[in-house]
Amino acid sequence: MADVTVNDEKLSKLCTQVFVNLGVPQADAEVTSDNLVQADLRAIPSHGVARLMRYVNGIKNGKILPGVEPKILKETPCTAAISGENGLGQPAGLFGMKLAIKKAKDSGVGFVTVCNSNHYGIAGYYSMMAIKENLCGISMTNSAPLGVPTFSRDMIIGTNPISVVFPAGKERPWVLDMATTVVPRGKLEVYERLGKPLPLGWAVDEKGIPTADTKKVLDNMTKAAGGGVLPLGGAGEEFSGHKGYGMSVLVDIFSGILSGACYGPYVDTKRDPSQKFSNVGHFFGAINIDNFIPVDRFKTTLDRMITELKSSNKAEGEKRVFIHGEKEFEKWEYYKKNGLPLEEKVYTQLEKLSSEMNIKFDIK
Amino acid sequence: MADVTVNDEKLSKLCTQVFVNLGVPQADAEVTSDNLVQADLRAIPSHGVARLMRYVNGIKNGKILPGVEPKILKETPCTAAISGENGLGQPAGLFGMKLAIKKAKDSGVGFVTVCNSNHYGIAGYYSMMAIKENLCGISMTNSAPLGVPTFSRDMIIGTNPISVVFPAGKERPWVLDMATTVVPRGKLEVYERLGKPLPLGWAVDEKGIPTADTKKVLDNMTKAAGGGVLPLGGAGEEFSGHKGYGMSVLVDIFSGILSGACYGPYVDTKRDPSQKFSNVGHFFGAINIDNFIPVDRFKTTLDRMITELKSSNKAEGEKRVFIHGEKEFEKWEYYKKNGLPLEEKVYTQLEKLSSEMNIKFDIK
Repeated sequence: MADVTVNDEKLSKLCTQVFVNLGVPQADAEVTSDNLVQADLRAIPSHGVARLMRYVNGIKNGKILPGVEPKILKETPCTAAISGENGLGQPAGLFGMKLAIKKAKDSGVGFVTVCNSNHYGIAGYYSMMAIKENLCGISMTNSAPLGVPTFSRDMIIGTNPISVVFPAGKERPWVLDMATTVVPRGKLEVYERLGKPLPLGWAVDEKGIPTADTKKVLDNMTKAAGGGVLPLGGAGEEFSGHKGYGMSVLVDIFSGILSGACYGPYVDTKRDPSQKFSNVGHFFGAINIDNFIPVDRFKTTLDRMITELKSSNKAEGEKRVFIHGEKEFEKWEYYKKNGLPLEEKVYTQLEKLSSEMNIKFDIK
Repeated sequence: MADVTVNDEKLSKLCTQVFVNLGVPQADAEVTSDNLVQADLRAIPSHGVARLMRYVNGIKNGKILPGVEPKILKETPCTAAISGENGLGQPAGLFGMKLAIKKAKDSGVGFVTVCNSNHYGIAGYYSMMAIKENLCGISMTNSAPLGVPTFSRDMIIGTNPISVVFPAGKERPWVLDMATTVVPRGKLEVYERLGKPLPLGWAVDEKGIPTADTKKVLDNMTKAAGGGVLPLGGAGEEFSGHKGYGMSVLVDIFSGILSGACYGPYVDTKRDPSQKFSNVGHFFGAINIDNFIPVDRFKTTLDRMITELKSSNKAEGEKRVFIHGEKEFEKWEYYKKNGLPLEEKVYTQLEKLSSEMNIKFDIK
């Protein structure tokens, strides 16, 4: 299917209007829309406006509450525990990360948990807020259970992303933002649309055996019939799949258990009809670099490391060694200049939604 | 080669005596020996007393200074930057982690960097100190460059381990302790001794191409001739090797750059004869769970998660789903009861060293 090129600012305004029409306060609508559009601009369309309908449906069916305000449950100079009050994940995330940054500036470090939240979009959106303050930024969230622990056949761990960000000097910031499974679900869906078999080592079938059958895996995932995506490192222990499984659980303990939110299989209202809200959990952190080393010296050294990595000798047949975040910054700049490509299906969905809501549709 | 079964306490005393004879103060000798023997007891012999000779040689040739004291360079209620003064890594690590724990108990969180240090043994030794204080414990270190970034052919990143630990209730603590490369160098050496080819995806040759040639990879590593161990996720991006590469750099930024120590290719005195000390860097953290959620509730929920993971349906042909740290705790208990197996080569080396140092050799 062809892409449609749109203007990111118009797109963001449209999404904001959609949320406002659903009763979401203006500021909350803006951060949620910005988060989705930034994902598209960073070439992570699985977390972009393609997700808008899920949010819309969540609000419509009462699983996501518009207009609630995050509540501080517990606070010290360098920590806080927050409840998102079952509102959108993005305003709760913004509140949590802002608080972590404030605490890091005042006290050196700030760590904030969020419970009673929802899908918060790309993890890197929050961690990257720390950059302009010269802080290290950390962001994690648990997510719907789509992953299978090592030697299991049950889909009971999330793709649980982690993002850690450091400011550099002349170079772009170093931005790690990764799911702890070998791939996210979105990548399987891309293969399905292309009619391609999965590389062996991405997913297992309902018996827990690695499979290339894209459709079967996605069907099983939808029905929670067993099988799912493998942790980073793949099946079994030969290529250290247990490490990816460990990273996924790590993120879940910080995001789900430490915050008092749901964890693992319970981050999914579909499994238990009596559970009204998803109760997703997040974890945010900010660390003041200057407390350890003068930030200018830190940046100069990180610049040097980045330069050396980029200029290292390439593997035969390869042209570039990438720095984390680099591809996304380049895409962002390109799309800002040349327009943002949206999948035609997503464009059409937006057009239909706008018409239903009586919102003027002009995003090109 | 057959193993020799020894008594771990006698072994620890012998190692302590070796260090004391080399001018290491009693307390520093004890923690260093304990760290090595605990690695053996946890069935991580690559970081056990097999490494003693490297430490002995390091002290003898002036690259590791005995009898120095860690120095606090900068301190706030929840952070500290420390210099290990080019002494053994273990006493510096103990000092750093103790300080992080103290700060977490006083202020909610404690983060401590260490520069001017040396190899500190297993990362989990330090993070696990947080358990009995009901804290989350974090420990990272950079290490000699044995890994190759995604799409590069140069051995310029470390196996850079990360350990994160949480206390549970009735269950054993959850202990993640992993190298960020797909395997550590020690695993390649095991394959060499067995004359086995490497699984494709563990390492690359001097051209950066995945290879099964165990001997070639180890030779290249010794000569720094290019190639080396791959990051978690393997070669290229198909199985997300870039995520493992990111984890490795993450650990290096926290341990090496934030601390002011060396990073990447420079954590190795062999590369540049003018560099006298390795200047390894570590990063320690402790987080007070009670600041976020009552620790009893945390432990009960973690117990439940652990039970559910263990009792999940197994993949076809598999009998157990493991919890991180579980295998090591079981080995520890078994070796404590039945004696600790040491490689005959290591046993013979110890016997020879004891004889040279006039230390009574009785470790069975």
